[in-house]
Amino acid sequence: MWPDTRICELLGIDHPILLAPMAGTTSPEMVAAVSNAGGLGSHGCATMAPDKLKTEMAAIRGLTNRPVNLNFFCHEPPQMDEAHHKGLLTALAPHYKAAGIEAPKDMPVPEFAPFGSAHLDLLLRHPPSVVSFHFGLPEDTAVAALKKAGTTILCSATTVEEARWLETRGVDAIIAQGWEAGGHRGVFLDLDNDAQVGLFALLPQVVDAVDVPVIAAGGIADGRGIAAAFALGASAVQIGTAFITTTETRSHGRHQKAVENGHDSSTRISRSVSGRPARTHRTDWIDAVASVDAAPFPMMYHYARPLQTADGDRHQFSLYGQSANLAPAGSAAERLQHLVEDASAVMR
Amino acid sequence: MWPDTRICELLGIDHPILLAPMAGTTSPEMVAAVSNAGGLGSHGCATMAPDKLKTEMAAIRGLTNRPVNLNFFCHEPPQMDEAHHKGLLTALAPHYKAAGIEAPKDMPVPEFAPFGSAHLDLLLRHPPSVVSFHFGLPEDTAVAALKKAGTTILCSATTVEEARWLETRGVDAIIAQGWEAGGHRGVFLDLDNDAQVGLFALLPQVVDAVDVPVIAAGGIADGRGIAAAFALGASAVQIGTAFITTTETRSHGRHQKAVENGHDSSTRISRSVSGRPARTHRTDWIDAVASVDAAPFPMMYHYARPLQTADGDRHQFSLYGQSANLAPAGSAAERLQHLVEDASAVMR
Repeated sequence: MWPDTRICELLGIDHPILLAPMAGTTSPEMVAAVSNAGGLGSHGCATMAPDKLKTEMAAIRGLTNRPVNLNFFCHEPPQMDEAHHKGLLTALAPHYKAAGIEAPKDMPVPEFAPFGSAHLDLLLRHPPSVVSFHFGLPEDTAVAALKKAGTTILCSATTVEEARWLETRGVDAIIAQGWEAGGHRGVFLDLDNDAQVGLFALLPQVVDAVDVPVIAAGGIADGRGIAAAFALGASAVQIGTAFITTTETRSHGRHQKAVENGHDSSTRISRSVSGRPARTHRTDWIDAVASVDAAPFPMMYHYARPLQTADGDRHQFSLYGQSANLAPAGSAAERLQHLVEDASAVMR
Repeated sequence: MWPDTRICELLGIDHPILLAPMAGTTSPEMVAAVSNAGGLGSHGCATMAPDKLKTEMAAIRGLTNRPVNLNFFCHEPPQMDEAHHKGLLTALAPHYKAAGIEAPKDMPVPEFAPFGSAHLDLLLRHPPSVVSFHFGLPEDTAVAALKKAGTTILCSATTVEEARWLETRGVDAIIAQGWEAGGHRGVFLDLDNDAQVGLFALLPQVVDAVDVPVIAAGGIADGRGIAAAFALGASAVQIGTAFITTTETRSHGRHQKAVENGHDSSTRISRSVSGRPARTHRTDWIDAVASVDAAPFPMMYHYARPLQTADGDRHQFSLYGQSANLAPAGSAAERLQHLVEDASAVMR
C-alpha cells in the first residue's frame, strides 16, 4: 500500500511510521509495541545517564526482536556566567514568589551531557538497528563507528541547509522537522534562526535538495497527514504527540491532560523551559517568560523545574505539537494499527 | 480529476486553484489570465482608494467574463499617541541614519482605510462573483448586502477558533492560512497570538471544525502541495508566491528578485513593515527591528517606507512565503496550467 518503500527497506520495517523519541514519554514497552506492530519504535535516551541507558536497552531487547531506534542530543556543552544567573533570577523572581518557593541559589549544573563516549561504548556493545540524533551530529568518528557496527543513522533537519549538511556527513535518512512539531526544535546551524519552516514548505524542498530518503515530522497525527506527507515526497513519517496518551506512556498525568485538551493554537515555541527552542503548552507563565534571556541548554531546566515541581498546574511545561486534537485513545499498538488503516483509507 | 469539487461548484470555476490576492502584485491582467485559464483570479484591492478600485474593476471586466475575486482588509481604524511616535523614531534612528535620510517628522496618517461604505457601494454597482476578506469581516450588514447581490464571501482564518467564528457569520468558504504563507497573517481574534499554526496541523482541524468548504493557503507552490492539501481535506488551494514573478506582475523588480532567490528559511514574521504580523524577506534590517513596538496597522508603513524608498536594497520588505523556491517562470496562464498538470500527475 505504501507509495514509497525506501525507508521500510532501509530500516527493515513493515510500515513507514516512526514513533518520535520523546524523552520522558517513551518507555521500553511503548517502543517494543510500535516495533512489534510493524513500525519503528524509538526511545528518547537523551536525558539518561549511561547506567540508565544500559538498563533501558536491556529492557527493550527483552520485549522485541524487531528494529528499534535510540535517540540522543548533540548540543554544545553549556557555559554560563554569574551575571546571566543573576539576571535570570531577577526576571523569574515574581514567578518563584507566585509558586511560594525560594529561587535556586546555586549556579546550574547540566542535568545531562550531550552524546559522548560513554553512550557510544554502550551502543557498540549491543548495536541498535537505528540511532537518531537531534541538534546535529556527534563527532565524525562516532558516526563512523556506529555505521561500521551496522547501525543506521538518522538526524533531524529544520531547514534545507541543515539537511544538506547532514547528507554530506553520511546520515542515512533525514527527518524533516516542521514548525508544527512538539518538543525541541532540532535546529543546530543557526540557533538564532526564528525563520523556522512549516512542514508544507520544508518537506518538498528537503526532498528536492538531498538524495537520501526523507522522514516527515511535525503535525502528523492521522491518515490524512500520512497521505499528505507522501504526496509531498516523504518516504516515511515520524509521529510523537499522538502517542503521548497511549497506555504505555511515561508522561505525567498533567502532561497527558494538556495533550488531551490541546488544540491547534494551544502551544508556542519557547526557550524558557530548557534553553533551546521547544514547542510547549501555552500558559500565562510560558507567555510571560517568552522573552527572558534563557540559560543555555539544558541549564534552563535548573530555573524552570522548581516552579513546575512546586506548582505544576500554573507552571507546567508540556511539550507537544499542533495536532494534539487529532489523536484518539488506546494502546501504542492500537494507535499504530489505526494510523496504518487510516492512511490506507485516505490513500485509496 | 479533482477529488473534491465543492469549491468549483460554489464559485463556478474549472480548477480549484485561487490566485492569492496580493496587494501591489496582482494586476487586472494577472487576475483575468488566471480566471480565463479556469482558476479564480483574485485582485488585492485593500490598499486602493475608491477611484482606483473603480478603474481596476472596469479593467478586469474588460479582460474576462469568468468569475473573479476582489479582496479587502477589515482591520480596526488605527489610533496612536505621540509617545509611541517618539519611541519609534528613537528605535529607528540608526536605520534612518544608515539610509541617509531624515526621520519622518509628522505623526502618521493611515495610507488606506479598512473596507467601508465607499467600497461597498462600488461593489454593489457591479457585484463581483467573489469577495474575500482578510483580518476578519466588515459589519454584518455589508456581508448581507453582498450576499444578497449574489456575491460569494470568503475569509481567511489562522486558527480553528477564527474558522468557527467566520462560519457562524455566514462566510461561504474559509481560507485556512498556514504559518508558511507569505504576506500578512489573517489573524484577527487575538493579535498577540504568537502560536500561529502550520498548514499541516491547521488544515485538517479546520476541516473537522466547520461544514463549509476549506481553501488551503500557505507554502503551496506545486502539484505536490496541491495533492497534499486535498489529502488533508481541502476543497481548493490558494497560491500567491508562485505568481509574484509571472509576466503580469506589478511587483517591483527588487521584490521579484527576492522571490527568485528566496528559499525555505529566507523569510520571517514581522510587525515592523506594516504594524501587523506579515511574512517578509529576512534582511539584517528586518531582523534588527523585529522587536520594535510597531505602530498600529497600517501606520507602520509611515516609518518603514521612507527607508525602502531611500535605500531599498538594504531596507527592503518583500512579502512572500516559504516555498518561493518551488515556483517556475512564465506567464500567469502558464503557471496555472502547470499547477493543474503537476497536481494531476502527483495525484495519479
